[in-house]
Amino acid sequence: MSSTTNNINNPYITVGDFLSNVNNFKIIESTLREGEQFATSFFNLETKIKIATMLDDFGVDYIELTNPAASEQSRDDCAAICKLGLKAKILTHTRCTLEDAKLACDCGVDGVDVVIGTSQFLREHSLGGKDMVAVTKQAIEVIEYIKSRGCEVRFSSEDSFRSDLVDLLSIYRAVSNAGVGRVGVADTVGCASPRQVYDLVRTLRGCVSTDIEVHFHDDTGCAVANSFTALEAGATHIDTSVLGIGERNGICPLGALMARMMPTSRDYVLSKYKLHKLKAIEDFVAEAVQINVPFNNPITGFCAFTHKAGIHAKAILNSPSTYEILKPEDFGLSRYVHFASRLTGWNAIKSRVDQLGLKMTDDQIKEVTAKIKQMGDIRPLAVDDTDSIIRSFHFELQDGQTVQNGQNGVNGHKE
Amino acid sequence: MSSTTNNINNPYITVGDFLSNVNNFKIIESTLREGEQFATSFFNLETKIKIATMLDDFGVDYIELTNPAASEQSRDDCAAICKLGLKAKILTHTRCTLEDAKLACDCGVDGVDVVIGTSQFLREHSLGGKDMVAVTKQAIEVIEYIKSRGCEVRFSSEDSFRSDLVDLLSIYRAVSNAGVGRVGVADTVGCASPRQVYDLVRTLRGCVSTDIEVHFHDDTGCAVANSFTALEAGATHIDTSVLGIGERNGICPLGALMARMMPTSRDYVLSKYKLHKLKAIEDFVAEAVQINVPFNNPITGFCAFTHKAGIHAKAILNSPSTYEILKPEDFGLSRYVHFASRLTGWNAIKSRVDQLGLKMTDDQIKEVTAKIKQMGDIRPLAVDDTDSIIRSFHFELQDGQTVQNGQNGVNGHKE
Repeated sequence: MSSTTNNINNPYITVGDFLSNVNNFKIIESTLREGEQFATSFFNLETKIKIATMLDDFGVDYIELTNPAASEQSRDDCAAICKLGLKAKILTHTRCTLEDAKLACDCGVDGVDVVIGTSQFLREHSLGGKDMVAVTKQAIEVIEYIKSRGCEVRFSSEDSFRSDLVDLLSIYRAVSNAGVGRVGVADTVGCASPRQVYDLVRTLRGCVSTDIEVHFHDDTGCAVANSFTALEAGATHIDTSVLGIGERNGICPLGALMARMMPTSRDYVLSKYKLHKLKAIEDFVAEAVQINVPFNNPITGFCAFTHKAGIHAKAILNSPSTYEILKPEDFGLSRYVHFASRLTGWNAIKSRVDQLGLKMTDDQIKEVTAKIKQMGDIRPLAVDDTDSIIRSFHFELQDGQTVQNGQNGVNGHKE
Repeated sequence: MSSTTNNINNPYITVGDFLSNVNNFKIIESTLREGEQFATSFFNLETKIKIATMLDDFGVDYIELTNPAASEQSRDDCAAICKLGLKAKILTHTRCTLEDAKLACDCGVDGVDVVIGTSQFLREHSLGGKDMVAVTKQAIEVIEYIKSRGCEVRFSSEDSFRSDLVDLLSIYRAVSNAGVGRVGVADTVGCASPRQVYDLVRTLRGCVSTDIEVHFHDDTGCAVANSFTALEAGATHIDTSVLGIGERNGICPLGALMARMMPTSRDYVLSKYKLHKLKAIEDFVAEAVQINVPFNNPITGFCAFTHKAGIHAKAILNSPSTYEILKPEDFGLSRYVHFASRLTGWNAIKSRVDQLGLKMTDDQIKEVTAKIKQMGDIRPLAVDDTDSIIRSFHFELQDGQTVQNGQNGVNGHKE
């Protein structure tokens, strides 16, 4: 849980804090568990192996698989992935019962993530009205069994942010004393806000001696921010899935978490994760579950590194860090300064003129920029359109020049 | 800036705070300004009027338009939208110069949002090395001009989270004294994290007597959480765009902000905004800029209210609030319990059996659930497939029953 601040000279590093693990966190990648609960997911063994292998290569610390009790094939697949010999530890996610725990251990996993509902809602509607004493007793029995089988064990409450705080801390303390390696906080319904997350995780940090894993759903758009804030409050492990796929609109996306961590923890992230492999993993999973990568996906959305407004383009061309907190080249991607619109400015057009290998004075570039903006008022401009306007303008300039110089027009057209 | 807590009985309301405006905020909708800076945006006047009218009907407080100085058509469109007589106030967003301010006022806007770079990065690369004294002097001159024209004026720094804190507070204090109605904090590069936002906005709240507007880019996935946290710290106005479209991967999406506010500020949100119109607005804008609504979009993503895992389905069928913080019916949408997969459980199948109007005992439903999970192990199941398995199983049951009852099979098949 120590926090190494090797980014001390970074001017926009987050507020330092002795609790913070932003420079020392682990990823529990749950595409093959939470992700299988996504509406259109159906992973056969071949697909599962491909995803697990890619994630392992990327550098995730843990890979979590669907409960082997879900179906016969789920059990066989779990056993098969355990045998792959990946660097990442293999976990499975089970209900808090001896039957599920036994099946999980029999599959050869490195660890079992058990979960049980602790909110009044879930105890009433999912656990048939069990009280917290019964829930705790059941948890300890299962934990001791899993430990006796030599596996890591994590205990998580479900719907933690709508559970009674005293109930929660009591059960976490009990399972911590029972020797779990990790406790989990889960925002199962996606209701938590960052300051609630900070308060709960910071409080929990003082009550248990275990690692702390967090799992955030994105129903209210805060999964990434909540994950980051949990690390600031002392959490050690973040649950992710590729593109965030999971129940409903999913959980904290692996890629977005990388985007969030890079500005604050660049050295740590680069030392652990192969960021240039992110796009291929996302593309593979997107195809497997038949979705498109969202247009606004951090890093890999088609326009994540596109700059359009004239004033943005001007500054970006001077120095990319003016309008970029992430460097596209860190992810094997490239920046695009959009110049074909009425919002363009002459600095963007100047850059394009240079790319086209044409020579113009600044005044001439301002003149052709005005022409492009006029045309951009009438209809959407393709790159080709803009290039045509530039070339045609340049052609006329050359023509004018050649007349002035008394040369014939043909020579003047050479570029 | 007063905070009315009419949700006092809500068990998962956020931590209360005298600074908080989560129950008293306004929306500055910038689809027609920030959104026009999105890579594929090209809005003609007809489209702009349609978007402005829909947003006005939805209930946004302000509509922000592209700088009239951007192009001739931008100026004409701005003037035309000002003449529509919408309930929402019309703003435009300009550079901090007298020329831009004059043009904006001439168009008939209700207010002008001026912005100027304050970070060292921007002063160096965008403003030709201006120091803070020169930046402040320029700002006050422009502010006084706009006020003299009878318009609202907002002053925003750009790239606020990478600006020197003392510089920032000095210029905000100066413009507050010069009589701006609103100061703006802008995370132009999308680098801010929630606790940084809380700290800066809370500090600013103590330094100025104006309203506080916040503008968050989503490069690191925190725009929604940062907007919410800013309200907790005393901000009063949130910038949004439909689906978040804007420079790079955009800003805080209008819909996601609604998702974030509903669990904490349900009564306030319902009193102001027509949530059931959200989907139509998103669909219209998505088509206009040729994008798909992201699969994981809060509220309107295709699976935002889809439940798949057996244990989730069981609880949801008992009581939707177990796994839903948002009610689909608030948005004119409906929930879907996915039952056609190997992750299904017998409670989900029971619900489907009821929907099909079939009668089975719980034991029979568990038996057919096992069959469905077996089939779901082999290949993806369509709803039709699952229904076929259920009907076929039911058919056999009826058949068996009719044999037991000594009746002929044909009558037994009636449902």
